[in-house]
Amino acid sequence: MRFEVTTLGTGAALPARGRYPSAQLLNIHERLFLIDCGEGTQERLRMAQVNMGRIERVFISHMHGDHYLGLMGLISSLHLLGRTAPLGVHGPRELREVIEVQLRASGTYLRYPLHIQPVEHVSGAVVFRDNQVEVTGLALRHRVECTGFLFREMPGPRKLLKEKVASIPHYARQGVKMGGDLVLPDGSVVPNSELTAPPPPPRSYAYCSDTAYAPELVPFLRGTDLLYHEATFSEALAARAKETMHSTARQAATLARDAGVGQLMLGHFSSRYKDVSVLLHEATEVFPETLLSEEGSTFQVGRPHL
Amino acid sequence: MRFEVTTLGTGAALPARGRYPSAQLLNIHERLFLIDCGEGTQERLRMAQVNMGRIERVFISHMHGDHYLGLMGLISSLHLLGRTAPLGVHGPRELREVIEVQLRASGTYLRYPLHIQPVEHVSGAVVFRDNQVEVTGLALRHRVECTGFLFREMPGPRKLLKEKVASIPHYARQGVKMGGDLVLPDGSVVPNSELTAPPPPPRSYAYCSDTAYAPELVPFLRGTDLLYHEATFSEALAARAKETMHSTARQAATLARDAGVGQLMLGHFSSRYKDVSVLLHEATEVFPETLLSEEGSTFQVGRPHL
Repeated sequence: MRFEVTTLGTGAALPARGRYPSAQLLNIHERLFLIDCGEGTQERLRMAQVNMGRIERVFISHMHGDHYLGLMGLISSLHLLGRTAPLGVHGPRELREVIEVQLRASGTYLRYPLHIQPVEHVSGAVVFRDNQVEVTGLALRHRVECTGFLFREMPGPRKLLKEKVASIPHYARQGVKMGGDLVLPDGSVVPNSELTAPPPPPRSYAYCSDTAYAPELVPFLRGTDLLYHEATFSEALAARAKETMHSTARQAATLARDAGVGQLMLGHFSSRYKDVSVLLHEATEVFPETLLSEEGSTFQVGRPHL
Repeated sequence: MRFEVTTLGTGAALPARGRYPSAQLLNIHERLFLIDCGEGTQERLRMAQVNMGRIERVFISHMHGDHYLGLMGLISSLHLLGRTAPLGVHGPRELREVIEVQLRASGTYLRYPLHIQPVEHVSGAVVFRDNQVEVTGLALRHRVECTGFLFREMPGPRKLLKEKVASIPHYARQGVKMGGDLVLPDGSVVPNSELTAPPPPPRSYAYCSDTAYAPELVPFLRGTDLLYHEATFSEALAARAKETMHSTARQAATLARDAGVGQLMLGHFSSRYKDVSVLLHEATEVFPETLLSEEGSTFQVGRPHL
């Protein structure tokens, strides 16, 4: 079961050659979710050979242009491509007006249902949930209200032990997978623990951009497999980071270490860094399991489920 | 004195590999004007090595996303780059709300004056004028109100004849250039016509996108040096052109021929045409002086002034 993230843009607010504004594509069990949608995201999706019609939901962290300006064009292209399936959009409460004003101005009546749902700026609040995935908010610290997202697989069914499968009647297998004991026709009971192994632990991915250092997130990030955290600046510009409410690479790594995440992925690099190895270096000093995001790169979240 | 147009995007509404949405950069006497600003225009400006801080004014034809969705990002980048000079934006009346809603949502207080001026949907109405250039509207026919733009040089000063320059006192030269006769200290008068040659004829560029065939534009386009006209479809799709209120290449050429323009430049190609030579072919049958616009290409408007 796939759980992976493809980076579409690693840039900060100002355009920089070869870097694009924030956008990431999550593939969870072959379902596609887009996180942030900076200008040109459609183009980046095409470069990554993603069929954008497959995107189910879009999650927007905040109303700075480098995180949402590509959304209107995406909504419009999906319309022109004949989409009929609903599109869920989760984001700041201002997003609805921004979209509706533009649909009105362009005289567009979408052929598919667009569900725009405001996100609460509260860590742990549920943004979306179904039987495969749960998305909760992460209250980030930025100049405008900015909410990160924690994506977590819902626990799957227990696995029937190979050597016991034959002993479980077909009609009872679903119940046993769901954790029930096996009751045989003669009334005897076989405890579930003798028949099944636990499902693989649910994997999780956290997206934290844009934010000042926010240690209060630690309990919410505890045990996350992969944490994306912005690293706009190097330590030499810590004052600038503070002023603009962004993070240094070391701050991102400190949060990753304190929350005990599996891996840390850095992004949202200031255009002043032609080469971001200084950011990687400063982060790995604190938290060795650090990766750099790059346009078009795909990382697995956690250990693959077989 | 330069007068040239650089094409930044030749695509229609749906993204197509290698084509970008509508945007053109006009250089008139080293002053830069942007016409339409589809998503990704900043990136295209960078590819064309244009310093976007030099753009004085932006002209938006209509509120379809492929013509304006890059504007908000441009406005925001100019702010981040520290612009202090005013930026003029001329476009449909809905544009102001679209921009203001987004500035508010992002908590942005621009450091430079942004003058958003609604454009009248009337052919011949003045959109902007100073002592170098005049911009008037062209009432196009589209599904939403869409206004093209006619850019015309203001007549320059008359040229002093080389062999007469020495005979004109310094204090009188400016007046003679402006068309006045020369009055000498002894009261004698030398007619202007003996001292000067007329200035080069003012050059003009017309931008017509998006529009159904609109023959009522002929008197307004008469004698234009370079006419850009959309050519979304080939003649085989004339019905589709009519339905969507776009033009075929032949219709563009017919307008060019009937208005007696110098050259015709085609663009806004439907994504279905991987190769647009069919459009060029159909247009040149009617009007031989037809060019294809291409991302990054620059064309002179009229004959160069020396």
